[in-house]
Amino acid sequence: MAAPLIEPVARLIESFARLPGIGPKTAQRLTYHLLRTPETEARTLAAALIAVREQVVFCERCFNISDAPLCPICRDPARDQVRLCVVEEPLDVLALERTGEFRGLYHVLHGAISPIDGIGPERLKVRDLLDRADAAKRDGHPFEEVIIATNPTLEGEATAMYLAERLDVAVGSVTRIARGIPVGGDLEYADEVTLIRALQGRRAV
Amino acid sequence: MAAPLIEPVARLIESFARLPGIGPKTAQRLTYHLLRTPETEARTLAAALIAVREQVVFCERCFNISDAPLCPICRDPARDQVRLCVVEEPLDVLALERTGEFRGLYHVLHGAISPIDGIGPERLKVRDLLDRADAAKRDGHPFEEVIIATNPTLEGEATAMYLAERLDVAVGSVTRIARGIPVGGDLEYADEVTLIRALQGRRAV
Repeated sequence: MAAPLIEPVARLIESFARLPGIGPKTAQRLTYHLLRTPETEARTLAAALIAVREQVVFCERCFNISDAPLCPICRDPARDQVRLCVVEEPLDVLALERTGEFRGLYHVLHGAISPIDGIGPERLKVRDLLDRADAAKRDGHPFEEVIIATNPTLEGEATAMYLAERLDVAVGSVTRIARGIPVGGDLEYADEVTLIRALQGRRAV
Repeated sequence: MAAPLIEPVARLIESFARLPGIGPKTAQRLTYHLLRTPETEARTLAAALIAVREQVVFCERCFNISDAPLCPICRDPARDQVRLCVVEEPLDVLALERTGEFRGLYHVLHGAISPIDGIGPERLKVRDLLDRADAAKRDGHPFEEVIIATNPTLEGEATAMYLAERLDVAVGSVTRIARGIPVGGDLEYADEVTLIRALQGRRAV
């Protein structure tokens, strides 16, 4: 029988291994790394973990992560107030912001509709989105465009269809991000559905 | 310009990204994961990080990680006291223990000799190893075998040569772990040096 791991080491490996994408071997390597480096490295990480849960809340308007009732994007008057981009997760906001291409506002659903997993619209920030669109119209500044940027998965598409139907009256237009061959991708390796979408989404050059 | 990340989130991403094998994208994913899961997950990880640095020390005999002056392996009278395995890192002990094949004691060098990086034997637990072998001989229970299990890299081999020369008088025999084609590996893809070692290390079947 192999010698048992000492308890605090076993516990840290276990904690790391619970994170997504971290297997038991990586968890071990991380743990042993932190035993070798100066103590401050482990302490800094621990403090950052505590701080993130103590200081980060969800924006009460768009449900993105925030350090205040309204997130930095919702607080920013320079953002285009009549263009709204709907995403599944806060991480999607980060990805879109990195492009610098979109200067409007966001709405984070915190998931996608998935009947198989028992996730209906009431489990997501869907009601808040519809109310937000209605309120904007009532106030005389309706959204000119709502871009639905949920993932091009079964759940993301179902969510997009559901939202498009219900947003129709309150907003100028509802659009969906393009699906097609990723830049740098290879036609040969694209699946059929992606190829069909790429053909359907073709544009004049 | 993209909206700046809120400070505690940026700091946690940065802390994660400082870990080996964790790139900026993975660091982001881990951070956002911990924002989504129950708060206890982040707290448990933080507590485990603190505990590991507060409770874990190095064994004063073999320099493996330990929760007491002597590690569980050095404390265990059932281990073979005359067989010693020399490794570079505590993680190597873990790997060898998992095999269940070796029932002796260990000595962790905490690195390998590397003149290029300015790491001489005095920066490693080499003196401690030689003293340990001498003391065992003096006490009338010399090590019958010292297995040098440093990595089959330039540094690991140099370390093995260095140790073999110096251990010779104090111990019964000095051996080196076999180098060859890994089990499940493919001759076709093995590098020349490994193939040479595999040939040199051949045995009668």
